[in-house]
Amino acid sequence: MTVPRIGVTPGDPGGVGPEIVVKALSRPSALPPAAYILFTDLCIIEAEEKRLGLRLEAREWRPGGAREAGVFLEHVPSPPGAVVPGRVSAQYGECSFRFFEAAVTRARSGLLEAVATAPISKAAWNLAGLPWRGHTDYLAGLYPGAVMSFWSERLKVALFSHHHPLREAVAAVRKEALTDFLVTLHHSLGKIPGGPYKLLVAGLNPHAGEDGSLGREEEDEIKPAIDMAREEGVPASGPFPPDTVFLRARGSKETVVVALYHDQGLIAFKLEAFAAGVNATLGLPFARTSPDHGTAFDIAGKGVADPRSMEEALRLAAAFSASGS
Amino acid sequence: MTVPRIGVTPGDPGGVGPEIVVKALSRPSALPPAAYILFTDLCIIEAEEKRLGLRLEAREWRPGGAREAGVFLEHVPSPPGAVVPGRVSAQYGECSFRFFEAAVTRARSGLLEAVATAPISKAAWNLAGLPWRGHTDYLAGLYPGAVMSFWSERLKVALFSHHHPLREAVAAVRKEALTDFLVTLHHSLGKIPGGPYKLLVAGLNPHAGEDGSLGREEEDEIKPAIDMAREEGVPASGPFPPDTVFLRARGSKETVVVALYHDQGLIAFKLEAFAAGVNATLGLPFARTSPDHGTAFDIAGKGVADPRSMEEALRLAAAFSASGS
Repeated sequence: MTVPRIGVTPGDPGGVGPEIVVKALSRPSALPPAAYILFTDLCIIEAEEKRLGLRLEAREWRPGGAREAGVFLEHVPSPPGAVVPGRVSAQYGECSFRFFEAAVTRARSGLLEAVATAPISKAAWNLAGLPWRGHTDYLAGLYPGAVMSFWSERLKVALFSHHHPLREAVAAVRKEALTDFLVTLHHSLGKIPGGPYKLLVAGLNPHAGEDGSLGREEEDEIKPAIDMAREEGVPASGPFPPDTVFLRARGSKETVVVALYHDQGLIAFKLEAFAAGVNATLGLPFARTSPDHGTAFDIAGKGVADPRSMEEALRLAAAFSASGS
Repeated sequence: MTVPRIGVTPGDPGGVGPEIVVKALSRPSALPPAAYILFTDLCIIEAEEKRLGLRLEAREWRPGGAREAGVFLEHVPSPPGAVVPGRVSAQYGECSFRFFEAAVTRARSGLLEAVATAPISKAAWNLAGLPWRGHTDYLAGLYPGAVMSFWSERLKVALFSHHHPLREAVAAVRKEALTDFLVTLHHSLGKIPGGPYKLLVAGLNPHAGEDGSLGREEEDEIKPAIDMAREEGVPASGPFPPDTVFLRARGSKETVVVALYHDQGLIAFKLEAFAAGVNATLGLPFARTSPDHGTAFDIAGKGVADPRSMEEALRLAAAFSASGS
């Protein structure tokens, strides 16, 4: 059996990223068989091991060498200096970007099947002069068809739009763009085990517009987009009332809700899946997952961070890699 | 002890309303001590009793007579004719409106402390030529400060706006209107046992606008409104990121989330409280509650409707009446 190669990045050194990564990778037997390759400056991991009293059995990674299950390390020289938990710093932002960029470069060269990323600080990236809003935004620059999605046992959600003011997100609901989105999403999901996945499209307005009396977008944009996507073989249905579509999808493993704006999807997802949710970027030539939480600066450095969401991100990366998505 | 007088209306004769009302009132010992007064045409209740094999111990109500716990009936002559479960009919719409109107008239005269309403069909009201979108809309016509809110053990939500296209709901987020809303809501909640209630105000944009980079409404409208309301003694805080504010409030009995649009509040509420949620109209001189579900035409007449949400609506009506809200 050929194990998948999964790049792992520790995220912002001042956040909980290094902690949850060390916790998760210190028990590789609890994870699916894979080569988990940490992209990091060595000093970050060593400091975290010391703080937690844990030890990774990590070997140096030889890209292109034989594939073996286990934990590996690619040293990315980018020392953060003294790490103060909870601090927002340009240097930490630079570090977390370098680690991520190194892993993505390997993945783009075909040397990784997946990348699992611990949380970065947007504010730190900003201080470091980096123009991206985060991992997904960087990937969307390389792959314009990238789709932000959220996975858990109970609920799966894909976002038609994410980091935009609500006013703009409403205006962006147009039939051409939505059709393209549904087709791209369907193709990306086709590479992921566990399917075929049905798409339930949420409406935009209360009660999905109630035949136009509570908003026209369902009639003018969303229904035509669903019809056009169905003609291209996409198993999409809707639009469903936004306040019940998640109840309809909940518990069905092969169902993905298409949310039309950030909070429509994430209000539901965070209530259902908080501690074990995974953020997955679809539409890339490799899999990319991350925990569904941020740097949690308030508890960084205390040893109390819950690694479950990171572990789930690693599991999902392995599952997605199984069929080369 | 003086028991509260709670008007109860059966809603649309073709929906599950009569069934859940008869089920709930057939076991008054499971409800708080109160005078539960059914406003209905007798024939609807008799037909439902026969269908379900249940019997209400209902006496004729004498408005203004001595207050006694138990089930009472005020006959409102408005026969629906033959009732076909699931049918949308102008005549059923007319009936359900007459029953509701009769109860509200009694409440406005000070003869009831509360009204608990089973679901009506908006489509049937429409066919009957009635201009209101539902119970809340009718009450808002009489009491412009009426507030739509949702109550459950785990989560309480008040809606700043409800039945408007999302585009209009976004445009309606203005500091003057939001300040007024927060003040009105706080005063209404002051009459309800279980308080004092804290208000957590949701943002409008993803991440509550992230200091303006994802939308200006938080900076320009919502923060000033919260500040102004606080100056008037309202315990409001926020704006909080919409996708985590419900996690923050969940489980806290004295916390009400202020949602800025219909689905922001109801996506969360329906996931958390579906079978036992209650819709309560605040800001009236009497209490008004209803189950958080519709006519459920698909299961009407089958005897399988779950009366829990109706029972909770009756309990909440009694609780709200306790201090004369």
